[in-house]
Amino acid sequence: LGTLRTLHIERLVVIGTGLIGGSFALALKRAAAVGEVVGISRKPETLEQARRLGVIDRAGGYDQASFAGAQLVLVATPVGQMDDVFRAISPLLPRETVVTDGGSTKQDVIALANRHFAGSLERFVPGHPVAGTEKSGPEAAFPELFQDRRVVLTPMAQTGKAAQALVRAAWEACGARVSDMAAEEHDAILAAVSHLPHLLAFALVDEFAQRPNAERAFSFSGGGFRDFTRIASSSPEMWRDIFLSNRHAVSAELQRYRDKLAVVQKLLDAGAAEELEALFERSRSARARLL
Amino acid sequence: LGTLRTLHIERLVVIGTGLIGGSFALALKRAAAVGEVVGISRKPETLEQARRLGVIDRAGGYDQASFAGAQLVLVATPVGQMDDVFRAISPLLPRETVVTDGGSTKQDVIALANRHFAGSLERFVPGHPVAGTEKSGPEAAFPELFQDRRVVLTPMAQTGKAAQALVRAAWEACGARVSDMAAEEHDAILAAVSHLPHLLAFALVDEFAQRPNAERAFSFSGGGFRDFTRIASSSPEMWRDIFLSNRHAVSAELQRYRDKLAVVQKLLDAGAAEELEALFERSRSARARLL
Repeated sequence: LGTLRTLHIERLVVIGTGLIGGSFALALKRAAAVGEVVGISRKPETLEQARRLGVIDRAGGYDQASFAGAQLVLVATPVGQMDDVFRAISPLLPRETVVTDGGSTKQDVIALANRHFAGSLERFVPGHPVAGTEKSGPEAAFPELFQDRRVVLTPMAQTGKAAQALVRAAWEACGARVSDMAAEEHDAILAAVSHLPHLLAFALVDEFAQRPNAERAFSFSGGGFRDFTRIASSSPEMWRDIFLSNRHAVSAELQRYRDKLAVVQKLLDAGAAEELEALFERSRSARARLL
Repeated sequence: LGTLRTLHIERLVVIGTGLIGGSFALALKRAAAVGEVVGISRKPETLEQARRLGVIDRAGGYDQASFAGAQLVLVATPVGQMDDVFRAISPLLPRETVVTDGGSTKQDVIALANRHFAGSLERFVPGHPVAGTEKSGPEAAFPELFQDRRVVLTPMAQTGKAAQALVRAAWEACGARVSDMAAEEHDAILAAVSHLPHLLAFALVDEFAQRPNAERAFSFSGGGFRDFTRIASSSPEMWRDIFLSNRHAVSAELQRYRDKLAVVQKLLDAGAAEELEALFERSRSARARLL
């Protein structure tokens, strides 16, 4: 019946010890799948907080001691920092170290990997855990974040099979369902199901908040407004990077949606009762079917 | 220290025994504030279900026996049915019976009241419980629906003080926080905080569902898409009526939002990192402040 190989990562380096990186470390610890977790962060106070909360075991930095003996490095910073991070770690990585990332866009991360890991692309496994909350920082991390959530890997032609298997096993140890996909398809799908809704929510809250009666009006909102705009509380820096990285796909989605709204407004202004009801009915059934 | 008068409604008639009407009846029963609840519904099976679930005590109809002795009538149908309902009940109402409604728009309901209750406007108290879920029907009703939720009353100049006090007391017995407001302000505020988000969610899901890869793409969505589109599962008929009733205010809101999206798309296409991040930051802080 074969042998069940148990995953054990002797040493893991997490760069960016916030919601994603911190939860990855906590989930692997809970699964007893990791020995030591070394954390690296731009901000000393974040790193100290991560250590105090037990998210990481040791504070590291961009030096050889921090990467020595690391089997796996997860880069869980906003995508906009990955150029600097890849450049910094490239000369420090032991030959056998596998590198993966948690970026929400993949084509741009692959371009960066091509630039900085040119001589050792077999070690690099681009990935995206489709999970998160609107919170950020080490105090937002929790080990169940990836339970039953999807993780998409978008391996490059050069990505090594062993490296890919290690990263898949690590995410599975976190409870995630792992899929492989082409980076281009990933970016197009995420533009539709994640990036566009975030952009719409940010835009709605910003437009709303600039009214003189915003507070009074908001106090009469129900659960709909709250749920609809929850994602507008997400990290501005992370989302800035996502929109810049994936802007062509997001802009195409936004254009489609604006065209749809133009049609809807025509129906509304014409008082087109049947067409509006049919649209709502289609929408309700589609959502029920999809869920 | 004054006397606490306990509300007791000997007989309540609920027209429309779904989520709102049914929850109102259940909440008053739980508060021991009501004797008999008579239910009226377009659909016999809905009425039978409401009776079987204990939401109402007796199935009624548009006849004098159903309204005899009623202290309060709640019209909790979609707004589009209220013209017919008001016309039907007007000749049946005992002189002392107070009538209120649960419609999500108020200026149009007031126009209907002016038409049908012309001789007895003191009895009519326009109201809107700002509560709901995406579910509908008697099986969706539950007594806690209005707990700590807002109810807006938009009394007309002719509305009697005693009638208004009775309706306020009934909603307070359901656990709601009751405010008075001009109907015009109500409709403008609700267009922004409720009607527009619903329209945006319906439009997004409909646009999304028409893609050939909708199911595959949806399977990679996270909690953001689900929350953002939850309200797209709401009752199509109810929302058709709301949008038709309040279409000028909703159309104005939609136009503002479309203008905002045009600005956002320009920022996106220009790769305007700072402006985008500033917008997201404003949005996140505004939401934190408002909540």
